[in-house]
Amino acid sequence: MILNQIDIKNLDKVKRLNLINSVTGFKSANLIGTISKDGKPNLAIFSSVTHLGSDPALLSFNLRPNYENRDTYRNIKETAYFTVNHIHYNIITQAHQTSGKYDLGVNEFTVTGLTEEFLENNRVPFVKESKVKLLCKYVNEYLIKENNCLMLIASIESVILDEDTMREDGFVDLSASQTITVNGIDGYCLPQLVTRLPYVKREKIRPLENLKI
Amino acid sequence: MILNQIDIKNLDKVKRLNLINSVTGFKSANLIGTISKDGKPNLAIFSSVTHLGSDPALLSFNLRPNYENRDTYRNIKETAYFTVNHIHYNIITQAHQTSGKYDLGVNEFTVTGLTEEFLENNRVPFVKESKVKLLCKYVNEYLIKENNCLMLIASIESVILDEDTMREDGFVDLSASQTITVNGIDGYCLPQLVTRLPYVKREKIRPLENLKI
Repeated sequence: MILNQIDIKNLDKVKRLNLINSVTGFKSANLIGTISKDGKPNLAIFSSVTHLGSDPALLSFNLRPNYENRDTYRNIKETAYFTVNHIHYNIITQAHQTSGKYDLGVNEFTVTGLTEEFLENNRVPFVKESKVKLLCKYVNEYLIKENNCLMLIASIESVILDEDTMREDGFVDLSASQTITVNGIDGYCLPQLVTRLPYVKREKIRPLENLKI
Repeated sequence: MILNQIDIKNLDKVKRLNLINSVTGFKSANLIGTISKDGKPNLAIFSSVTHLGSDPALLSFNLRPNYENRDTYRNIKETAYFTVNHIHYNIITQAHQTSGKYDLGVNEFTVTGLTEEFLENNRVPFVKESKVKLLCKYVNEYLIKENNCLMLIASIESVILDEDTMREDGFVDLSASQTITVNGIDGYCLPQLVTRLPYVKREKIRPLENLKI
């Protein structure tokens, strides 16, 4: 089955949303916690949190157009800090509930029943139920002019996790913590670790062309 | 267990790489196929392909510093086109093998035994074994000045998939096609669909402050 650009354009909106959101592969599943300058917590689900680099430790996530009028962006601009909290099997429905377009200032912790947690004197709320949590700090933003989305870059300031999910070499076994992955807009999947594969050493393979000489 | 920024900085390199690559959550697992102007195919694994928007259909992925000297970027700049091919359960080892730092011009299809497929008169190679494939066209690039990575933006020109993985509403069931997700640098995981949840309708919930009046 081949769908070209015209076929895709002609799909009804929901079908196109479901299709195009699915075809880049599985996505990360995180709750971003923020707080306004005057102390109102906020929580929102994001599937675009992506590793950007390890030294310095950086991540990115995308905000959709009209981000200026949403709590997550406004709070991050006010306070610089936010938290990234992994969604695991037991909190899928609560996490999904944060995707509702609530009025500005509504506290999704209250709406969903997830628990605010303040760690190490930080003002910004973590999700107590999450098993892997990051404290992040705003670094920069890039306006994606092609569709007016904003890519926000942040540094990872702290990592909080259950000790028994981290292996000797630093690998965090996300299957062990029942971390979820997102398929499309609304599909929640539970991954199981199949294998870890060894680093592929630099191999000096000559281009085939050279072998013919 | 709490690791702050100094703890993270002081980890040995491999441990930091494993940790920071794991803590943003699961990642997409794709092979990017390209071809040089003079006809040399190339294939490379990427875990940063991310949905950017559905109308227009756009995706992004990240290239690490020194991208100017790697085949994927050079070929895309020469020809504008590339393919995104999902990695599924049966091709994990072959896909991982493309992560080796081969010399410029080496054809990873040959190295791995994956099969080049040319569809609809396109010059750029798809991976025949993949069950979800995208033809993409370069749109723009953003230099992430914080760590000299490049975010490349592309339009999705065609979607090629097995008809029986696509649901009535456009949702592509990636568990049904045994698509893999990446944990950290080298962990390959097989997700199973747990549930799809309904769209959360706009709910007019008053801020708690208002209720107290």
